[in-house]
Amino acid sequence: MNKLGKTIKKIKKPDLNLIRQAQAKLDSLTKPRGSLGRLEELAKQIVSITGNLRPKIKNKAVVVMAADHGVVEESISAFPKEVTAQMVYNFLNGGAAINVLARHVGAEVFVIDMGVATDFQKHRLLMLKKIDYGTKNMASGPAMTIHQAVQSLEVGIETVEEVIKKDYDIIATGDMGIGNTTASSAIAAVICETDIESVTGYGTGIDNRGFKNKVNAIERAISVNKPNKGDGIDILSKVGGFEIGGIAGIILGCAANRIPVVIDGFISGAGALIAATIVPDSTSYVIASHCSVEKGHRFVLDKLGLEPLFNFDMRLGEGTGAVIGINIAEASVKILNEMATFDQAGVSKKVNKSIHVRNLKEIAGKYTPAQ
Amino acid sequence: MNKLGKTIKKIKKPDLNLIRQAQAKLDSLTKPRGSLGRLEELAKQIVSITGNLRPKIKNKAVVVMAADHGVVEESISAFPKEVTAQMVYNFLNGGAAINVLARHVGAEVFVIDMGVATDFQKHRLLMLKKIDYGTKNMASGPAMTIHQAVQSLEVGIETVEEVIKKDYDIIATGDMGIGNTTASSAIAAVICETDIESVTGYGTGIDNRGFKNKVNAIERAISVNKPNKGDGIDILSKVGGFEIGGIAGIILGCAANRIPVVIDGFISGAGALIAATIVPDSTSYVIASHCSVEKGHRFVLDKLGLEPLFNFDMRLGEGTGAVIGINIAEASVKILNEMATFDQAGVSKKVNKSIHVRNLKEIAGKYTPAQ
Repeated sequence: MNKLGKTIKKIKKPDLNLIRQAQAKLDSLTKPRGSLGRLEELAKQIVSITGNLRPKIKNKAVVVMAADHGVVEESISAFPKEVTAQMVYNFLNGGAAINVLARHVGAEVFVIDMGVATDFQKHRLLMLKKIDYGTKNMASGPAMTIHQAVQSLEVGIETVEEVIKKDYDIIATGDMGIGNTTASSAIAAVICETDIESVTGYGTGIDNRGFKNKVNAIERAISVNKPNKGDGIDILSKVGGFEIGGIAGIILGCAANRIPVVIDGFISGAGALIAATIVPDSTSYVIASHCSVEKGHRFVLDKLGLEPLFNFDMRLGEGTGAVIGINIAEASVKILNEMATFDQAGVSKKVNKSIHVRNLKEIAGKYTPAQ
Repeated sequence: MNKLGKTIKKIKKPDLNLIRQAQAKLDSLTKPRGSLGRLEELAKQIVSITGNLRPKIKNKAVVVMAADHGVVEESISAFPKEVTAQMVYNFLNGGAAINVLARHVGAEVFVIDMGVATDFQKHRLLMLKKIDYGTKNMASGPAMTIHQAVQSLEVGIETVEEVIKKDYDIIATGDMGIGNTTASSAIAAVICETDIESVTGYGTGIDNRGFKNKVNAIERAISVNKPNKGDGIDILSKVGGFEIGGIAGIILGCAANRIPVVIDGFISGAGALIAATIVPDSTSYVIASHCSVEKGHRFVLDKLGLEPLFNFDMRLGEGTGAVIGINIAEASVKILNEMATFDQAGVSKKVNKSIHVRNLKEIAGKYTPAQ
């Protein structure tokens, strides 16, 4: 419990005092006040997270946590379990959606084997942190031991520590794990205190029979295990997954180290719920990228009090929405750092009695005429 | 009328037959079908626009159309008229929001003097296309002559031709013009057939008195000029602006040349309405980036049948939302062009009776192990 306990202790509220200063800076820039909306809000959040009025977002990472799920025995997924490992290879080969989108936004992809049912060779982009060869079937008992739940959180924290040692400024979370919307729905049902059907969706694309199996498996998992809604580690061990614990650990690690963390869809949301149940203030370090098609995601975001940046009807996972979110976060910080102020640009402020409209010729002299 | 007439004739419907082929390509990629939502829709739209199953979005441009408005005499804006010219200098100096965001997404900024009430020197990034030193006050007569309205459309078309000659693959529209939300609200009220207050907002931040002046000026403009809702050129001449005509011209020019055009907020939306009134099919070439705080924008997007990609509560103009839209459009095309297929990656498809789960060792051999 050492690393987890230390990390929890280290998490403070973000520096809300700096928000006023960031607002003053934003209001001095050549634009009507508040006219960049969410971009300004995001810039202020990142100032408060990092404690820096000129935050730097240069090196960007997406951490894709992969693991298998014993609950696939219940025929709850449209894809076979083997796809988890196959997609890990696809990530390492650079051919998956997350690779394409991460390259697009200039982020590095790190893949973490949290508990895939296959042994991998070493690879530059793969961190071998396997906790077990997949979870147990939660429909008939706990998905993992309490020790493993803590271990998955600590691996997430450790991953943050390794990534920030490489000078990354922002981390996006992603997931890969056939069966993991089933675990996430169970977590959402417990923590959001909703009925199971309200937070259960069609995952990668199951049919109605698959959907029934899924709801049924979650019902049994909750009734057999009786997770305690106030205890994130208990919930994680009973109905969670190794990658979900890893994501919760990423969030706790980012919060402890004052690094902004951009979460992806439903599975990352379930991780954020676990993290919030352990340390409520951890959510202040989280930026929600998108709202997923998985209908439980809306409940999760509402419970976390997070408003997503966009809704592209995505349901892929891997961190695909989160890297787009990173790109928007980076844009917001550049607005704060790079725009000219009214004084620098010689632009007149809002009309009022004391207005001083500068002489245009004087301003004209400021720009370099064509060669 | 020569250039405008030729351009109108050249506009065809986008190639909808290619959409099925693009869908088949998307469905062969290593992800559940449709799981990238709007990104897949966007990729298909760009295929149909360009007529290319592997569309290229490499060189990106944002065209910021600037002009002044005679209607500012009616005290309808929070900022003095001089700000239009001052912001043009700010664009040329690289200090405005559009410069920061365009750099962020790797787009070049072109500024077009469509009708600013100031003479500018030559500058590498400024196209001098002044039609007049601002429009006339539309509250007491037509904003411009019919000849000037056609001229503003043709300058927009000409701008597209010049920009694509430089090998740009996608164009974003932006605007600068103190008073131009007033003209845009008038256009929206006429074409969307709504009452004026429903499509009139607070622009850069007027108070309630300013808002009353604004609604009153639009009422007078419409009652004095009686624009014909079916005639885009008539509307443009009576209650439009030179930059709005320029934006409409950009859209017509892009449609004629099969170039995707990403529109920004309310003013670009008014330009798209004018373009659609002239050639309804032009809207198929348009990608709506965001929904602005200006409340008329929602009416405009609905009339155009466009669903914006995001809503960041922005109301700045300049093309600031549109360049973020360009970045998302580029991401969508990369998904189509760069992702691995199931066959390439050796990933199992959806579970069904004929499923062939490949041997993991065979797949493992495909990735390069760590050095």
